[in-house]
Amino acid sequence: MSERIVLAYSGGLDTSVAIGWIAEATGAEVIAVAVDVGQGGESLETIRQRALDCGAVEAYVADAREEFAAEYCMPALKANALYMDAYPLVSALSRPVIVKHLVAAARQFGATTVSHGCTGKGNDQVRFEVGIQTLGPDLKCIAPVRDLALTRDKAIAFAEQKNLPIVTTKKNPFSIDANVWGRAVETGFLEDIWNGPTPDVYEYTSDPASAPAPDEVIITFKEGVPVAIDGKAVTPLQAIEEMNRRAGAQGIGRIDIVEDRLVGIKSREIYEAPGAMALMAAHRELENVTVEREQARFKKTVGQRWTELVYDGQWFSPLKQSLDAFIGDTQKYVSGDIRMTLDKGRPVVTGRRSDSSLYDFNLATYDTGDSFDQSMARGFIELFGMSSKVASGRDQRLAEGK
Amino acid sequence: MSERIVLAYSGGLDTSVAIGWIAEATGAEVIAVAVDVGQGGESLETIRQRALDCGAVEAYVADAREEFAAEYCMPALKANALYMDAYPLVSALSRPVIVKHLVAAARQFGATTVSHGCTGKGNDQVRFEVGIQTLGPDLKCIAPVRDLALTRDKAIAFAEQKNLPIVTTKKNPFSIDANVWGRAVETGFLEDIWNGPTPDVYEYTSDPASAPAPDEVIITFKEGVPVAIDGKAVTPLQAIEEMNRRAGAQGIGRIDIVEDRLVGIKSREIYEAPGAMALMAAHRELENVTVEREQARFKKTVGQRWTELVYDGQWFSPLKQSLDAFIGDTQKYVSGDIRMTLDKGRPVVTGRRSDSSLYDFNLATYDTGDSFDQSMARGFIELFGMSSKVASGRDQRLAEGK
Amino acid sequence: MSERIVLAYSGGLDTSVAIGWIAEATGAEVIAVAVDVGQGGESLETIRQRALDCGAVEAYVADAREEFAAEYCMPALKANALYMDAYPLVSALSRPVIVKHLVAAARQFGATTVSHGCTGKGNDQVRFEVGIQTLGPDLKCIAPVRDLALTRDKAIAFAEQKNLPIVTTKKNPFSIDANVWGRAVETGFLEDIWNGPTPDVYEYTSDPASAPAPDEVIITFKEGVPVAIDGKAVTPLQAIEEMNRRAGAQGIGRIDIVEDRLVGIKSREIYEAPGAMALMAAHRELENVTVEREQARFKKTVGQRWTELVYDGQWFSPLKQSLDAFIGDTQKYVSGDIRMTLDKGRPVVTGRRSDSSLYDFNLATYDTGDSFDQSMARGFIELFGMSSKVASGRDQRLAEGK
Amino acid sequence: MSERIVLAYSGGLDTSVAIGWIAEATGAEVIAVAVDVGQGGESLETIRQRALDCGAVEAYVADAREEFAAEYCMPALKANALYMDAYPLVSALSRPVIVKHLVAAARQFGATTVSHGCTGKGNDQVRFEVGIQTLGPDLKCIAPVRDLALTRDKAIAFAEQKNLPIVTTKKNPFSIDANVWGRAVETGFLEDIWNGPTPDVYEYTSDPASAPAPDEVIITFKEGVPVAIDGKAVTPLQAIEEMNRRAGAQGIGRIDIVEDRLVGIKSREIYEAPGAMALMAAHRELENVTVEREQARFKKTVGQRWTELVYDGQWFSPLKQSLDAFIGDTQKYVSGDIRMTLDKGRPVVTGRRSDSSLYDFNLATYDTGDSFDQSMARGFIELFGMSSKVASGRDQRLAEGK
Repeated sequence: MSERIVLAYSGGLDTSVAIGWIAEATGAEVIAVAVDVGQGGESLETIRQRALDCGAVEAYVADAREEFAAEYCMPALKANALYMDAYPLVSALSRPVIVKHLVAAARQFGATTVSHGCTGKGNDQVRFEVGIQTLGPDLKCIAPVRDLALTRDKAIAFAEQKNLPIVTTKKNPFSIDANVWGRAVETGFLEDIWNGPTPDVYEYTSDPASAPAPDEVIITFKEGVPVAIDGKAVTPLQAIEEMNRRAGAQGIGRIDIVEDRLVGIKSREIYEAPGAMALMAAHRELENVTVEREQARFKKTVGQRWTELVYDGQWFSPLKQSLDAFIGDTQKYVSGDIRMTLDKGRPVVTGRRSDSSLYDFNLATYDTGDSFDQSMARGFIELFGMSSKVASGRDQRLAEGK
Repeated sequence: MSERIVLAYSGGLDTSVAIGWIAEATGAEVIAVAVDVGQGGESLETIRQRALDCGAVEAYVADAREEFAAEYCMPALKANALYMDAYPLVSALSRPVIVKHLVAAARQFGATTVSHGCTGKGNDQVRFEVGIQTLGPDLKCIAPVRDLALTRDKAIAFAEQKNLPIVTTKKNPFSIDANVWGRAVETGFLEDIWNGPTPDVYEYTSDPASAPAPDEVIITFKEGVPVAIDGKAVTPLQAIEEMNRRAGAQGIGRIDIVEDRLVGIKSREIYEAPGAMALMAAHRELENVTVEREQARFKKTVGQRWTELVYDGQWFSPLKQSLDAFIGDTQKYVSGDIRMTLDKGRPVVTGRRSDSSLYDFNLATYDTGDSFDQSMARGFIELFGMSSKVASGRDQRLAEGK
Repeated sequence: MSERIVLAYSGGLDTSVAIGWIAEATGAEVIAVAVDVGQGGESLETIRQRALDCGAVEAYVADAREEFAAEYCMPALKANALYMDAYPLVSALSRPVIVKHLVAAARQFGATTVSHGCTGKGNDQVRFEVGIQTLGPDLKCIAPVRDLALTRDKAIAFAEQKNLPIVTTKKNPFSIDANVWGRAVETGFLEDIWNGPTPDVYEYTSDPASAPAPDEVIITFKEGVPVAIDGKAVTPLQAIEEMNRRAGAQGIGRIDIVEDRLVGIKSREIYEAPGAMALMAAHRELENVTVEREQARFKKTVGQRWTELVYDGQWFSPLKQSLDAFIGDTQKYVSGDIRMTLDKGRPVVTGRRSDSSLYDFNLATYDTGDSFDQSMARGFIELFGMSSKVASGRDQRLAEGK
Repeated sequence: MSERIVLAYSGGLDTSVAIGWIAEATGAEVIAVAVDVGQGGESLETIRQRALDCGAVEAYVADAREEFAAEYCMPALKANALYMDAYPLVSALSRPVIVKHLVAAARQFGATTVSHGCTGKGNDQVRFEVGIQTLGPDLKCIAPVRDLALTRDKAIAFAEQKNLPIVTTKKNPFSIDANVWGRAVETGFLEDIWNGPTPDVYEYTSDPASAPAPDEVIITFKEGVPVAIDGKAVTPLQAIEEMNRRAGAQGIGRIDIVEDRLVGIKSREIYEAPGAMALMAAHRELENVTVEREQARFKKTVGQRWTELVYDGQWFSPLKQSLDAFIGDTQKYVSGDIRMTLDKGRPVVTGRRSDSSLYDFNLATYDTGDSFDQSMARGFIELFGMSSKVASGRDQRLAEGK
């Protein structure tokens, strides 16, 4: 029996060509694997058929949208995961769920190798291959663009020569990755980092300047996860989709940064993540109300490390799992409502209420009749400042002694 | 000779009354100290005269605006200091510069005690007193509101009885602290955290909805500090003031959070900091371009601790100084231009250029002819993922063995 | 009905007097609570009777040794908890278990107040009272030594006057706290930090110089907890007790440091913790063998914060619980055997074996036939060093440009 | 003119053969570079002559011992650098100073490539090459063992065939790296991690069991660096050498761990570092006395990251430099004397005294007449525990509500 290779298949030109290219280069049978993580576009059935038409011996398709939203996006929300305080890990989150299906397909069809369409200078090759190494330590990896010299020009020539059922355009200026959590865009003219983005870069978000009237929304969370919007129960996927629609209409969630890639270089990236950014703003403020101070302070350190690990392709690593245990414990009381106005690019929290609130009106109020005993403050200040006071006394003594 | 007490004096009702109140309660002579940190309002000369009219034996006034901007706000900018990722430390930054002048005045006039107008349940009492303990370990502290039972009602009665030259209004609904870095507002109806802020809360910022046309600005930084705006050289104070004006006109920098106070309670706070928030957005993106990845990652941890310390009144602490040494070293190459559009509540970076940029077009570009050797990636991925791969191999082996 | 106060009762002079002293000062009924955490000395029954003889209306005694070992010492072992890299948290661990019983006794006997014998300058008052605040937010706290002026001299006079059944010695030079995890000693002549400890300071450990022949021991761990010693099954309490005996005979676990107290001062402390230190040395090396690198690196940060929190009396805090969730997850595979030689003050690990080991002889060996692909290294090095290389290229370019 | 390659030359078999091997494989001229970092053995002049006899066109020798001690070991001492809490970075510290001389030699002799004798599975290849990339971004790297198939057997055959002036032994069981800061040993039978080390593994340390009478020493530090021993002024090199001698005689500083390598595998390592471990024990206790609590707590995090970076070959990285700025600032007051007994494997601190001590007898003492105001404690405890108390009140309320 021939060796078998599963290929992460998008339905586009590059991976359609890769089916035959890999088969010719390696003599193996190719099984196409297409995973729907909310990227939109063609139906899984259309994609499945095209894979077979392009020479795949099998095609495995999976609607992973609910799984992706619940098991990958929600942990990111709980972690308030923003790489470099800006990027909500759009592509970094989808890679592990795709890896899971690639490894499942390899097991199902007896493949020994997994293949993907990434280049050799980005983060996604690392995320795919480290994920595959981890879930299937016995599986090999191959990347036709990086390892088998499959350039864009060769892909077009191959498609035309083999008469593949796929449109060949010389050059799409945009390199795009999308899923329900957001959309990433790279393109040539943005590689000059003094250039601003042009309007045609965006698809998930409208221009904030032309937004309709502000949109007020109430998001209900239970243990860190949105469970209702304006009182109507939602799944995680529905929560993201509805907030994508409503926050997207207000132009919320456009991101433009110079980013530190895992492979050691800086690159310019444009992202859109309207739902993610609106949900995160709401989640953070609900944490402000329900999470104790020291827990919140240390959670920032944990969230930063979580975010770096996921960005760096370590979703399945032991440390990631232990950080999840920490974060999960912090979310026990992150339940309640956040009222928010979506307004021309900005998600503005205007109200919060929670049965598990730690905000205590009677302690906080400056009205008479509060329950805070102000006479406690002197002792607190004296001992809280003691170690600094002793140190500065020492410093002054020595300075004068000189 | 009588004992002498220096009093942090604002010119308002409470501290005007405190002059006489302290004198009566303690028998000491009171020296009023007024420090201009950009809070606006009356002139220092007016305030000086009122202090004397209210019974102060001396009045010490200081225009500390340039000092405050250069030595307190700029370090906060270098640290990207946002407490709870939101609050740019407005009041927390002004307390140490005021403390410095209070201690200087105490030395100059031979005072043994320092006094301030804070209550016993806020952060500022801690910031004042820990600062004073540190700079003047021999000085005592007294807070008339907290320690001498000086309530608002008693203050009004005292002012009327003594005929003090100060307006006595029964109740100003807002409790405000302001300086050039921003403005903080607390008020009764906001103590219900489900209530949104009303328009009259704001003074430094216009309503974003009624903002004029977007305003493009180029900010030039040198070693982390803004040195020119649109090509015109500025001091730190001028940079903040111009950005306050321009970003304030666009409604940038409104903040509404439930915040963890140092004294262990949560409180609702509204802030405005248009210049600070716009400058910080620019500074962060310039760091993205000029600071190496691992340095940037660790700097977040350092910046968080710096911010907590300053919020917690530890400006003069040994750790704060050591963190400054770290941060200072990271700013050596944070020089260059950021182009930004100020647009209806949002400071949007659109371009960056720097002689000390670490963005390397030839490494980053997806064009042909790049200098990145993609064949290096396989080895990187193999070893980068090795420890997780070995761990997951172990986990699977044990899971199967069960 | 009178108000009732539960008192943490040791059976010694101070707390025996406190029973009557509190009753006289407050008019309340006093319930004595004695908890055995392995401190040795008199039986609980003897202590119970003395409490009643000294005027307690009820006496609550609890043998908490197994509970203390399993639920307090084992988490410290999993965290490798050494405050300032030296002190295994002896007293800091026993306070929360005592607090738990104090609150249980308060509930059982309808008390409204909890009392303890600590002074006002140590850590233990904070640990008791923060613990009590947390488990019983409605309970009040009172400390006779600190709040009711109960000095040593007054205690002796009171005991003699009331003819209490307790020996009154003018002055014991040592202030001691002990439990199964270790023993803490403070004493006057050690307050001169240039003085070394004298032999009579120690009780749990022999002089290393006079130790018998080295003692080899094999400790078996399961998920971070010792479950057998030299092949014989043990409970956590038995593990600690046996190692106290064997490591103590070799003089292991003597500690002498200047320590940062929570109340802001530095103090000199002597500790003995033979079992704790030997078990921790074994546990750490087993972690080296079974925990993945990045998980291990971050666990140090978590362990440090855990240790600070517990030292600072925050055992029951939300952050402590979340850190436990992290640590628990890291211990899943910390199972196996450690062989160790206990030798004149030093616990020396000489061998480790584990079914869940991550040490892979075939990857590690320098023999021919290893499975490590050395050709991967070049790519790893190139990309691992990329960001530093780009930064130094920038630095050199600018240095030359000057 | 031929291309030129500088080779890190030890004088041993492998690198002696490498001179000719590289020349044959590449056609380049080879310049041997030998750096004395205190490894002992032959004189630099002997080594220089052998390099020339083996075919080097030039030989560059440098006595870098004082430089290594002052600029590499002292920063490690200030950082209390122990990788995995155990390994004092012996080899990791010497690589950057050797790199510095390799790059200097490359510049001096016009070489374009740097070569070293490391294999492809250890840390040192990364340290050499990342260092060289950083100091000389234009220089190429080549490793004959890894890249030119130079095995031990081939080396022996080559040496015999070319009649090189070097002893060829079939197999030295030990792989050793040594310098003044310590000595590292790997060997076949220790690759079974259940095996303990045999006595012949050690060279810097005597068997603790046969140590002479305990040796008392007083080490004087100035700003974190030892400047006198028993009152006699020493350079950093002299301090290390004397402590190597005296602590080595007592068997101090033997280390045996399973270690996480940078390349992702675990390996078994034996180290000896008598001087380093004794100096570090003294330095840590002096820090306990002179460094403020919060500064000390955060310094542990900084020291851990410093240690990881240096272990990982990032000595010249930007983050390492910024961490040095932090650490440098913390050492300003780390001055004074530590008295220590070196006793059968253990460096035991028995006394400390310092003009810049933060230990304040009057605050710390339990004698009457202390200056600590115990009444301050109640207020401190109340506010210090407030946020946990509010949280537990919430938790209990919700638990009861269920």
